Formats: sequence, C-alpha cells, structure tokens
Amino acid sequence: MTGVEIVEVCPRDGLQNEKRVVPTDDKIELVHRLIAAGARRIEVASFVHPRRVPQMADAEAVVAGLRPPPGVRLTGLVLNARGLERAIATGGLDEVNYVVPATDAFGLANQGRGTADCLAELPLIRKLCDEAGLDLTVTLAVAFGCPYTGDVSPPAVVEAARRIVDVRPDELALADTIGCAVPAEVTGLFRALRTLPGLPPLRTHFHQTRMTALANVHAAQAEGVTRHDASAGGLGGCPFAPGAEGNAATEDVAWMLRRSGHDAGLDIDRITETGRWICALLGVPSRSGLAAAGPFPGADLARRDGGLSD
Amino acid sequence: MTGVEIVEVCPRDGLQNEKRVVPTDDKIELVHRLIAAGARRIEVASFVHPRRVPQMADAEAVVAGLRPPPGVRLTGLVLNARGLERAIATGGLDEVNYVVPATDAFGLANQGRGTADCLAELPLIRKLCDEAGLDLTVTLAVAFGCPYTGDVSPPAVVEAARRIVDVRPDELALADTIGCAVPAEVTGLFRALRTLPGLPPLRTHFHQTRMTALANVHAAQAEGVTRHDASAGGLGGCPFAPGAEGNAATEDVAWMLRRSGHDAGLDIDRITETGRWICALLGVPSRSGLAAAGPFPGADLARRDGGLSD
Repeated sequence: MTGVEIVEVCPRDGLQNEKRVVPTDDKIELVHRLIAAGARRIEVASFVHPRRVPQMADAEAVVAGLRPPPGVRLTGLVLNARGLERAIATGGLDEVNYVVPATDAFGLANQGRGTADCLAELPLIRKLCDEAGLDLTVTLAVAFGCPYTGDVSPPAVVEAARRIVDVRPDELALADTIGCAVPAEVTGLFRALRTLPGLPPLRTHFHQTRMTALANVHAAQAEGVTRHDASAGGLGGCPFAPGAEGNAATEDVAWMLRRSGHDAGLDIDRITETGRWICALLGVPSRSGLAAAGPFPGADLARRDGGLSD
Repeated sequence: MTGVEIVEVCPRDGLQNEKRVVPTDDKIELVHRLIAAGARRIEVASFVHPRRVPQMADAEAVVAGLRPPPGVRLTGLVLNARGLERAIATGGLDEVNYVVPATDAFGLANQGRGTADCLAELPLIRKLCDEAGLDLTVTLAVAFGCPYTGDVSPPAVVEAARRIVDVRPDELALADTIGCAVPAEVTGLFRALRTLPGLPPLRTHFHQTRMTALANVHAAQAEGVTRHDASAGGLGGCPFAPGAEGNAATEDVAWMLRRSGHDAGLDIDRITETGRWICALLGVPSRSGLAAAGPFPGADLARRDGGLSD
C-alpha cells in the first residue's frame, strides 16, 4: 500500500449547487462526520458573495462551529481578495483554494472576470496568504472543457498554469469542472505541466457527469498525481457551470484506489454512510456506486496489498 | 482515430434483470434502433430456461423478427448445449456467447453447475458451433470478483482461460459480472492472459456497480484490448448476481473512446436517445452519464449564457 490523499469537497462543492440550503448545524455535523470517517483535508465552505451562492452564505458560521482535531486541515474556496479576507478573518482555516478559470467565458459567468484578471490578482492573494500563514492552493477551472466554449486549448491551460506556478502556490489543481475529460486528455495535460519549472504538488478535481471521473483519477495516478478532490455521496456541481453533474464520489474513489494498492486512510463504510446521510438530508439520490452496491462480498479490503496491482 | 468495437448487450444483459418483461415487438424495435445508431455486433437474446429468466423466454421470436442489414452480426448467450441447439435452430445468429463461471459458487447459482463441468462441455459446444457455422465467443464470468465468494483467485482465472483457449474460441471475454474490478486488476489479468499460447482476440465486459467500468475499459484499451461489451442506457444486471447494477453505458464508453482517438463507429446521440427510449419503456432511470448531461457544450450553450451570468 502506498499513500494517496483525498480532499473531501462535499461541504463546499457538494452543497453549493443543491436547491435545498443546508442549515449551518447540519453542515458542521457533516464535516465532523467526515472527520470521524477519516477525512484529513476538507474544503468546508466557499467565501463567495452570498447573493450569488446563498448555499454558502454561512461560511463564517460553519468555520466557527468546527472543532477539528489535530492533523485535520480545513480549506475554503475564494475567488478574489475580498473572499480571501473573509476566509482569513475566520481564523479557522489552514489553507485557501483560489480559482483561476481557464476560459474567459467561464470566468465571467462564475466570478465576474476572465483569466487574465484572475491571474493578475494572484500575487496579492499569495502575499495575503503568506501574511496570514495560510497555504495557498490554486485550482485551474474548466481545464478540460468549458460549458460556454466547449473544448479548451491545452496550450492555453499550460500557459495559465505557468503564470500560476510563478506565484509559488503550495499546490496546483486541474479541475474538470463540467465532467467532460477523458483519460487520454488527463494524461496529456498532466504530462505537459511537468515541463514547467518549480511545479508544486498537483491535485485533480473530476466530475462524474459523463462517468469518466474514476477513469480520470486512475489516469492521473498513473502520472504520479496522488491528490484528488472527491465528494461523499458524489454530490457536487457548480451553479455557473450547467451540466456539472456530481463530483467523483469519495467512497468510490477510495475503493478503487485502495484495491489498486493506494490507501487514502478513510473508513470507506463510514464515508459511504455519511454520503447517504447528507443525500437523505438534501432529499436527493446518492450518486455513489458504493452507496447503491453495498459492501463487497466476503472481501477484506485491508488484506489486499497488490497481488495483480502494477 | 483507430478502430474499436463495442458489442451492444442491451437487448440481452440490459433486459434480463428488469422486473418488467419487454414485449417481443419492443425488443425487436430496440435492436433495430441500435442498428440505426451504428451498432454492428449485438447480443440479442439469451437461450436459457424460460422459467429461470422469463425476460428472455421469447428468444426465438426475437431472432425471427430481426432484419439485420449486411455487416451486422447477431449473437446469443448460451449456458449449455441445449441452449446452443436452440440458438442454432433460429438460423438467424452469426455467433454465440458461451459462459464459463470463474467460481463454482456463481456457476451453481447462475447455471446449475461449476467451472469444471462448464469447461468439460466446451469441446462439444465448439463442435456444434463448427457444424452450424457459428462463431464461438467464451465469456469467463465473475473473473474479477464473485457475489458469493468475494475475491476470485487470478491464477484460477488464468487456468480457466487456458482451458478455454485450448478449445480455440473465436474470442475470449473477461467479465466483471458484479462490477467490482479496478483498473490495476484489469491490467494485471489481461497481462497474465498474454502468457497463454494461441490466445484469440480478447473482449471486456464491465459493470458500473462501483463506478469503475469506464476506468476498466480504459485500462483494458491500454493493454491492447479493443473489444468491449456495453449496454445502451447503462441497463444491465444478472438475476443470479446480487448487486450487479448496470453495464457500462454504450454512449458513455463510446464518448470516452472517441475523445481518446478510438472510434466505435456509433452515432453517440442516437445511442443515447435509444437508451433513453428503452429506459422510459421499462420505467427505470437511465444510468448513462451522457443521457443526463446532454450534448457536449459548444455553440448551443454559448448562446444561452445570459441567464447564468446574472
């Protein structure tokens, strides 16, 4: 078994696109259930304008209510310096996740400005994070396809990544925001990033819209990318990305990776149960395979340490 | 673009496990719609005992009603010589698909006998196919996991495959009957098969139970396996394999492969539409990603971004 990291994004990506606004106390319970299931890095809120994303209007209250044990890292999504200042002011986060759109069209719809403007603010974001002692992850959104322009140019993505890497983020993620990537594209784009000097650790963010999320995680793993966003119950979507149906489900990703010899340190049954719980609370069906399938018959997951794994 | 073959199994695997028994005329229409969408190899029925699988009781009538154009190959699933004789008697098939279970427990539940007995009948099956001028595919079921025993021993699968290859089938398929395989296992098992002399072309049969089907197709492709079973709408399951929830959806597999440079020759929109049609007829939700996602964005979505950028 080798280690792999799953960043749990259900409290943010999972809840931001649901009609029903989850009460603050239930969000706090969700995070605590995820921690009890072994999650060690959790995106707990999005510091965006409450009128644009009312599901995230209580971001500060959520963070204030969390009691993470040592070793658990909390992160929050920010789209600009104003959101970052809110995130810093909570005093409860370990890192923030700043989003740069790979296309102007998505950027304008999602955050009111295009790629260049988001890149231009990045040095300030880095400076503010440094001053506040927060780690900075940058996520390059719609890196594999855009709800407005369709195909996205890989060289343009690599160029945006180069600009991001110049600002020394602690991590860079490629996001398939609408779930249209296929493994060959994942392989190609992560390989292309390897040409950039000073590359930080990489992370993936895949949606299951066209059922390719786990295939894409597998392809990224094969390229040495061992950090992956996922959402309990497969919840997820973006209010400004039509057709973004569900993140890769944490339990499904963890199952696939563990049976492939990569342990994310999660209690897969408890994650599955947590996904069922939050989906029931929202009144939506789970998009998780494991939630429907139930436990694998007769298997002792921990016993498997490779065998045929390569 | 390189070629790849998708064997459409919706009329057989897709319908055999649904509560509602589809009328013969609708089955025939399903096959004709699939042909119109570009399907060139279709598993149209299962010649099993009608009391055991009432959904397939009209196998002969289905075949009799089909009018495949030149270039379309029809296949039928058989579990024994008696089923094969029924399949031959239709006079309308090009090939048959004989199932050998990788575990005795699944074999006893699925077809009333274990691995050894199914292997022992294989020379007779080959002889009858030769006499009838039918191609013979052999599918090794539960090759990656069994609903009754859990993990399946890869060396035992390879040994069963060796026995099958001895009988010179025209093709050998590995089936993940309950949808528990992960890509590392797919890679390992297909690589292990390569050690067998006289290996025929290989095919995959993946279920989407734990959301790994497309990842597994991708892994098999990387090993040079370019033939894949899939089912329009993601329908599928086995009455004797609890938890086998849905085949890989044809439209999702075809989308992933085409965007990876492998063309199955299908009209993906028409396959998606056919999947929607049969799911509506059955009164079940589609399990296809593409059916929910709609067409990949581009011109259409770009024209209606006004309401989203508020």
